Amino acid sequence: MHYSPVNPPHRLLMGPGPINADPRVLRAMSSQLIGQYDPIMTGYMNEVMALYRQLFRTDNRWTMLVDGTSRAGIEAILLSALRPGDKVLVPVFGRFGHLLCEIARRCRAEVHIIEAPWGEVFSPERIEDAIIRVRPRMLLTVQGDTSTTMLQPLQPLGEICRRHDVLFYTDATASFGGNPLETDAWGLDAVSAGLQKCLGGPSGSSPVTLSPRMEAVIRRRNCVEQGIRTASHQDGDDEMIYSNYFDLGMIMDYWGPERLNHHTEATSMLFAARECARLILEEGVDQTVERHRLHGGAMAAGISNMGLTLFGDARHRMNNVMGVVIPPHIDGEQVRRLLLEDFAIEIGTSFGPLQGKIWRIGTMGYNARKDCVLQTLSALEAVLNHLGFRTVQGQALQACWDYYAEQAG
Amino acid sequence: MHYSPVNPPHRLLMGPGPINADPRVLRAMSSQLIGQYDPIMTGYMNEVMALYRQLFRTDNRWTMLVDGTSRAGIEAILLSALRPGDKVLVPVFGRFGHLLCEIARRCRAEVHIIEAPWGEVFSPERIEDAIIRVRPRMLLTVQGDTSTTMLQPLQPLGEICRRHDVLFYTDATASFGGNPLETDAWGLDAVSAGLQKCLGGPSGSSPVTLSPRMEAVIRRRNCVEQGIRTASHQDGDDEMIYSNYFDLGMIMDYWGPERLNHHTEATSMLFAARECARLILEEGVDQTVERHRLHGGAMAAGISNMGLTLFGDARHRMNNVMGVVIPPHIDGEQVRRLLLEDFAIEIGTSFGPLQGKIWRIGTMGYNARKDCVLQTLSALEAVLNHLGFRTVQGQALQACWDYYAEQAG
Repeated sequence: MHYSPVNPPHRLLMGPGPINADPRVLRAMSSQLIGQYDPIMTGYMNEVMALYRQLFRTDNRWTMLVDGTSRAGIEAILLSALRPGDKVLVPVFGRFGHLLCEIARRCRAEVHIIEAPWGEVFSPERIEDAIIRVRPRMLLTVQGDTSTTMLQPLQPLGEICRRHDVLFYTDATASFGGNPLETDAWGLDAVSAGLQKCLGGPSGSSPVTLSPRMEAVIRRRNCVEQGIRTASHQDGDDEMIYSNYFDLGMIMDYWGPERLNHHTEATSMLFAARECARLILEEGVDQTVERHRLHGGAMAAGISNMGLTLFGDARHRMNNVMGVVIPPHIDGEQVRRLLLEDFAIEIGTSFGPLQGKIWRIGTMGYNARKDCVLQTLSALEAVLNHLGFRTVQGQALQACWDYYAEQAG
Repeated sequence: MHYSPVNPPHRLLMGPGPINADPRVLRAMSSQLIGQYDPIMTGYMNEVMALYRQLFRTDNRWTMLVDGTSRAGIEAILLSALRPGDKVLVPVFGRFGHLLCEIARRCRAEVHIIEAPWGEVFSPERIEDAIIRVRPRMLLTVQGDTSTTMLQPLQPLGEICRRHDVLFYTDATASFGGNPLETDAWGLDAVSAGLQKCLGGPSGSSPVTLSPRMEAVIRRRNCVEQGIRTASHQDGDDEMIYSNYFDLGMIMDYWGPERLNHHTEATSMLFAARECARLILEEGVDQTVERHRLHGGAMAAGISNMGLTLFGDARHRMNNVMGVVIPPHIDGEQVRRLLLEDFAIEIGTSFGPLQGKIWRIGTMGYNARKDCVLQTLSALEAVLNHLGFRTVQGQALQACWDYYAEQAG
């Protein structure tokens, strides 16, 4: 059988991510490789640390990449921090809360859950009550759960965690870059993210940041590989982490001045991660968030004026992705198929209790742009009309134009 | 502080890997992204499976990528197969044997080691004797240990493992593509590799293949995430794997027809992996191995005729990397520095007992080429002469030319 070179067709990716990468990120990835201990390479690694400190709004020394998808970053943090039997509290308001529970169970932690209906978030009081009841070692939160498009307010939780001596983690994969996140000001001990949502890169590298408190927890589980250890290396006195690849102590020693060999850094993905961060800093972190708010709002204005209903608590929607209730008598998958096949536009379906009930439409990263919003709205309206769903001609797009005009005024 | 776009300087990477990526692989990676369930994307995933079956010389259905560096592939296999208390046997003949022990210990396996001096390999008899003594569940081997440049013969071990009902795994990261590997004919139950050595790609994706016997072991530990499980899903009856990210049962369900969501496949790395395999099949798997043999031999002829000594048992050297004994009164790091700074050529140092004693010079992947061999030899000779090491003028390169002529005749 003959295989041609990769040649993916044009797609406008307006789902919950991955979305189209910024062409500058793709160009960065096509740079030729250099050796992993070349001073140019270690210089790039140091720059990546400095760049992501600014994105995470932190002074944390240990701000670096885990080589894998966003889930790899989550797992590195949980496996490195949690010992068997440790209690964790997980406020679950969507699929990715369940994922945190699942990974914590893999660590043999004792997992305690509080649940909110899909489409809602938690009050700080409810989380504090549960902390007082459970007395967890760690609070595991999702900032933005793409399955429901809700954004959990994190700001009040850091102070609560400090008061009860709880480590505070958030999975910011889907929200990072498109919604405010203040690692230090909000008292976060660990945050993980990915490139494929608001950062405009491909999946496959997970930026993480760890507070000094988190570092101390991980260092107590230190372990140096036999093949490269010397007399100066000492193991920690706490239980060895159930993974070598995700042992953040080892990853710190690789990113730190000792440059102790661990994995071979995924150079092309590092180039991508560096370019994603560089572009956001060029625009400004606040400006990038604001751009997501603007175009998410424009999309919402258009959708609402097409006679469609947005899903979930309007006060807590993420800037970068929205749930749209599939109207009665409309086959949601047929709409998605027509959009993809005839307009080359992808929007998302959903998981679990929301499967077949909502579409998910994203405006994020490189695709948080006016042309993407207007193209998606007009294509969606055309498909819906084609399938018999009536809209008021011109109203949706006019509402979108009006919104942009208001915001500019 | 201002950050410019990534712009790595030219380097000719002639160390133990990573090496320069084939420009066609870099171009594949700069392709725009598509959605993870787009039929074009799942089509590419199926093609990747088919391509790597040919590279691994196997009919194994479960031949796919783990999203991480080579070490991620090793860990996915070990974590998915090994339960706490399982006995494993590891024949250690270099640093990467120690790595297998380290990862197995993280799985809480009972690790039994036999050791060969660095620069040697094991006879099948010695391995069988240890299997009879230890009665392990799994034999963990390294095919080519770059730390010593030795290649362990694997062919006789499959039959031994079958006879004693032992699962047979090899880490082929450093050898794959440049040395023969016959997964099915040699009775291997699991193999993992990476792109950054003989495959001519970047680090960050790990091709793996699993035999039906290995699949059965992993399936007994099945687990479906709560956020996406339905009534039709059933958990296995064996102990849950200590990782979600590396749970190969979940990764199979994502690559299989159910396409059960797990991580978000690292699309750019998948494009790279596909192109690496496509280029090797275009050349022919045997022809690619032969090319590594040819250019490795030419480099060895030149090195020997420069008055330098090759490290280790000549009968068991890898085709794609050689150890070169650093001569007395020569500072190995100074040589490497001059090569890098003045010629933009990188060669490798070594680890552990060999640190400061040998250089490691690779001829692999895109750099298994005549021009790379001759450039490296002439630059190395110039640097050695510059530092006072005397060679016979013209002899090394002439030996290399003669070798090429002989091989062509």
